[in-house]
Amino acid sequence: MIAKSIEKAEEFSCDAVIFPELALTGYPPEDLLLKPSFIDKNLEYIEKIKLLSENIVVICGFIGRENEIYNAAALMHDKKIVSVYNKQHLPNYSVFDEERYFQKGNRNKVFRIRDILVGVNICEDIYYCEGPAKIQAVYGGAQLIINISASPYHAGKIFEREKMLHTRATDCRACIVYVNLVGGQDELVFDGSSLIIDANGGILARCKPFEEDILVFDLDLEEIQSIRLKDSRYKSQRLELSRENIEIPEIIQVPLNNSISLNKARYSNKKIAGKSESISYEDLISCEEEEILDALILGTRDYLHKNGFNKAVIGLSGGVDSALTAVIASMALGSENVTGILMPSPFSSQSSIDDSVALVKNIKINSMKIPISEIYGSYLEILKGIFKSGEINLTKENIQARIRGNVLMALSNEFGWLVLSTGNKSETSVGYCTLYGDMAGGLSPIKDIYKTKVYALCDFINKKYNKIIPKNILTKVPSAELKPDQKDQDFLPPYDLLDKIIEAYIEEDMDFNYMVNNLGYPGETVKKVMHLIDISEYKRRQGSPGIKITNRAFGKDRRYPITNKFAE
Amino acid sequence: MIAKSIEKAEEFSCDAVIFPELALTGYPPEDLLLKPSFIDKNLEYIEKIKLLSENIVVICGFIGRENEIYNAAALMHDKKIVSVYNKQHLPNYSVFDEERYFQKGNRNKVFRIRDILVGVNICEDIYYCEGPAKIQAVYGGAQLIINISASPYHAGKIFEREKMLHTRATDCRACIVYVNLVGGQDELVFDGSSLIIDANGGILARCKPFEEDILVFDLDLEEIQSIRLKDSRYKSQRLELSRENIEIPEIIQVPLNNSISLNKARYSNKKIAGKSESISYEDLISCEEEEILDALILGTRDYLHKNGFNKAVIGLSGGVDSALTAVIASMALGSENVTGILMPSPFSSQSSIDDSVALVKNIKINSMKIPISEIYGSYLEILKGIFKSGEINLTKENIQARIRGNVLMALSNEFGWLVLSTGNKSETSVGYCTLYGDMAGGLSPIKDIYKTKVYALCDFINKKYNKIIPKNILTKVPSAELKPDQKDQDFLPPYDLLDKIIEAYIEEDMDFNYMVNNLGYPGETVKKVMHLIDISEYKRRQGSPGIKITNRAFGKDRRYPITNKFAE
Repeated sequence: MIAKSIEKAEEFSCDAVIFPELALTGYPPEDLLLKPSFIDKNLEYIEKIKLLSENIVVICGFIGRENEIYNAAALMHDKKIVSVYNKQHLPNYSVFDEERYFQKGNRNKVFRIRDILVGVNICEDIYYCEGPAKIQAVYGGAQLIINISASPYHAGKIFEREKMLHTRATDCRACIVYVNLVGGQDELVFDGSSLIIDANGGILARCKPFEEDILVFDLDLEEIQSIRLKDSRYKSQRLELSRENIEIPEIIQVPLNNSISLNKARYSNKKIAGKSESISYEDLISCEEEEILDALILGTRDYLHKNGFNKAVIGLSGGVDSALTAVIASMALGSENVTGILMPSPFSSQSSIDDSVALVKNIKINSMKIPISEIYGSYLEILKGIFKSGEINLTKENIQARIRGNVLMALSNEFGWLVLSTGNKSETSVGYCTLYGDMAGGLSPIKDIYKTKVYALCDFINKKYNKIIPKNILTKVPSAELKPDQKDQDFLPPYDLLDKIIEAYIEEDMDFNYMVNNLGYPGETVKKVMHLIDISEYKRRQGSPGIKITNRAFGKDRRYPITNKFAE
Repeated sequence: MIAKSIEKAEEFSCDAVIFPELALTGYPPEDLLLKPSFIDKNLEYIEKIKLLSENIVVICGFIGRENEIYNAAALMHDKKIVSVYNKQHLPNYSVFDEERYFQKGNRNKVFRIRDILVGVNICEDIYYCEGPAKIQAVYGGAQLIINISASPYHAGKIFEREKMLHTRATDCRACIVYVNLVGGQDELVFDGSSLIIDANGGILARCKPFEEDILVFDLDLEEIQSIRLKDSRYKSQRLELSRENIEIPEIIQVPLNNSISLNKARYSNKKIAGKSESISYEDLISCEEEEILDALILGTRDYLHKNGFNKAVIGLSGGVDSALTAVIASMALGSENVTGILMPSPFSSQSSIDDSVALVKNIKINSMKIPISEIYGSYLEILKGIFKSGEINLTKENIQARIRGNVLMALSNEFGWLVLSTGNKSETSVGYCTLYGDMAGGLSPIKDIYKTKVYALCDFINKKYNKIIPKNILTKVPSAELKPDQKDQDFLPPYDLLDKIIEAYIEEDMDFNYMVNNLGYPGETVKKVMHLIDISEYKRRQGSPGIKITNRAFGKDRRYPITNKFAE
């Protein structure tokens, strides 16, 4: 892919082509970084890419090695690695563990390409207001800052990031080319959303989010000098930075091969090629639901395709979670590659079956009906001696859920379909789900979507795609249908309250007193929800991966011991 | 527990009582550390402990907070926190993530308690030959170094640690009191093995490993001065350390309450109380198998008890893995609290049933027989339309394994028993196990034990405990018995070779060429095993926690992406 992109850039007579952070290895490589053979292979490939740089400057993220390893960017030209920049700020919070692997760089390099001064830095580096970007611009005179990133998505992140880049560009009085990874890896989705910002903070061009893109832009940096001349801060640079012991950037000359086009063109600040036709983000993405849906589709598609699966199978309960999951799957993989399985038990309502059939028809996926009553009967028969009573209790509910898990996994084994589990964040938080039952599956697309947001996404889908989700699915009272007349709300508080408490507790680390006294949530309910979240860690530990959408997802983003007595 | 121990120490007229690293919160607290209410509660409790220090010096690990949080040790006396030491070296590798949470301390404090100079530091700090211990001893004159630790076990670690402490004691010419956590938390076992080493590196006293203990020792530090007088290094201290900018330790006077006994006694280097009667480690633990078995028993017991379970249930296949797991469970919980379930399918041999019955009788656990043939039949009936052929393929094998998982979980739900899964490290590595089937369970005690080591542990048990594991279980050819005439070795290479390859690949990060050219393993087999390990990450991600025994266990110790195309 990198080689093809270089070729394409050359077709457009580009002077330089830029690839994201760790483009060579994927992000995060995790403990593969501890394998010498992995580092070796990465170095072998950067040498191959180097050979493609005869007529163009190539900047590409890779793992640098000098005794220790670095999260690095190679600047290559004329079949040489001209210089390597090592990332200085290593994130070690949330989903990030970079201090587990990398050493910190400490050199603020600036590259002189003909008469343009360019500062290169990596992801987290640009988040620091007095970090490498500013040092490169203010001390090194860089007019252009190139930041290569592997910045994972969460709802609202694209906007937050643009605000930060706007501030950095005006702060540095430099143009910023921000190049972010696109695609899914396990629980993370990288939204791309690469863009070019001028020295006044205005957006010159952007790539479409959640899609691979090659944006070709003809960048005019001349005006930057005139902007700077008017800016008093650039008269006495040293006043600008309060940090002491600033390392003045080394200026590295990039000796250009004659074939490069820098001297051939006049620059025009004009987009030459690329997918996005619009500059305003709001023109691309109408609302948060659209953004989230795009993230879920990309995350689901990449998880399957990158792991060798084309087809998915989903248990359809007639409820809203499995409906949304099926819609996402059909959009990610194509309807023809999705099979919905109806598995009615003695407690399934006819309307659940009818609603599922209607959904299957609307979204044009395949389906099968595999009733589980007889299998359930055979468990009851064999286990009758051990049951304490004839009542339908949790044991018997779970047996049904696990029969369905077994049936879906049998289809997976027989046909090579990946099972998508359908649990949402509300259930996953409070453990309202059955381990090895409805939790069974290779991926859990909506694991980080609250139940209230599940409905909002369905409403958005129905507005945009002509009511493909049957109305009854959205209006009926939620039920697991594992015993007669069961309702989610018999066990759980109403979802709108539940979701608020979960969000406060998990994403905001709020305590009981704050939730009750400042947010006004009912104490008994808060207490119950906190307790359910605390005791369900063991289930989540064995859950399938899900796509991170919120500010704090389960998984690497929230690491809790199972064994700990702490409770407020 | 801390309060009771302080009381007990006072009964013995101790001058000081010492508790391990983060004794107040358990180790590791993980993302609980991001909750302000968790830090608050910990500070509230250290204030309570402070009030118990009127007549004794108390040193206890807790989370210190000064803007940021620290992994800290409080030195308390006379109902005051006299001083707090902050850990300086934060481990951020293997199972450790301390840089995710804590700031690094930078003060090498030495406490003067009457005429004794004492350096306190925390776990990782003492592993650095020019770290806090040496600075405290050489620059601060500390005669006694107290290291509080939460150092998790792996096979051989106790011996490695003692060697390191021996080196540090002779290096510092100081007596070392090493106080380590005991007990299990999730995948980690802390072995305790606390000890006192004199300034020549000799062991004065030790606690028994894998058991809670209060060791009371009457320590004579007078000889240290005479040892130092003979040591030329102590004449010109500054030559000793090659590091620059050493912070000379601050000497903090601990104002003693008159009640303290320091002035009452003559010190004698004599053990007053504590469990271990012997100084040599070899007298306590006869071989590696005994050490590992003790770790597995403690890890299993603590996982259940600390999470509110008294009883366990295990599927007994007649094989060696479930036999070992049952023995561990009976030793951890008491035989009366363990139930073995025989779940014969159409492919189970009579000898498997007989062997399981014999085991149950020998180790005196409860048992039930729940045949699964009829349930299996009902799946085959319902699914007959989807099977591609009548052959017993992987799909049908997995259905059986998942029926057993469902049955065990039903017993768990009905009776509150925790399911112990029985997979070993060899299977877990290459994915020779069924997700939601034999992998189902709350804890997987032998998950980090290679198959060859499973046999070694059984041999050790049979030697020590009068052949409680029936001989036939140890001599039969391993089989999953999920189809006729199945043998593990039809699919896998012989276990002795398999285990060596897994160990080289997973624990040593060796590459293909090294294994083939330097270790002489057959190339085809190495390739196959590496591939199986790589593609089984998705299964391990959903596996139950297991007890870390090797140098690199699965779980937090080995963090791999599922989605990554890298293969050598």
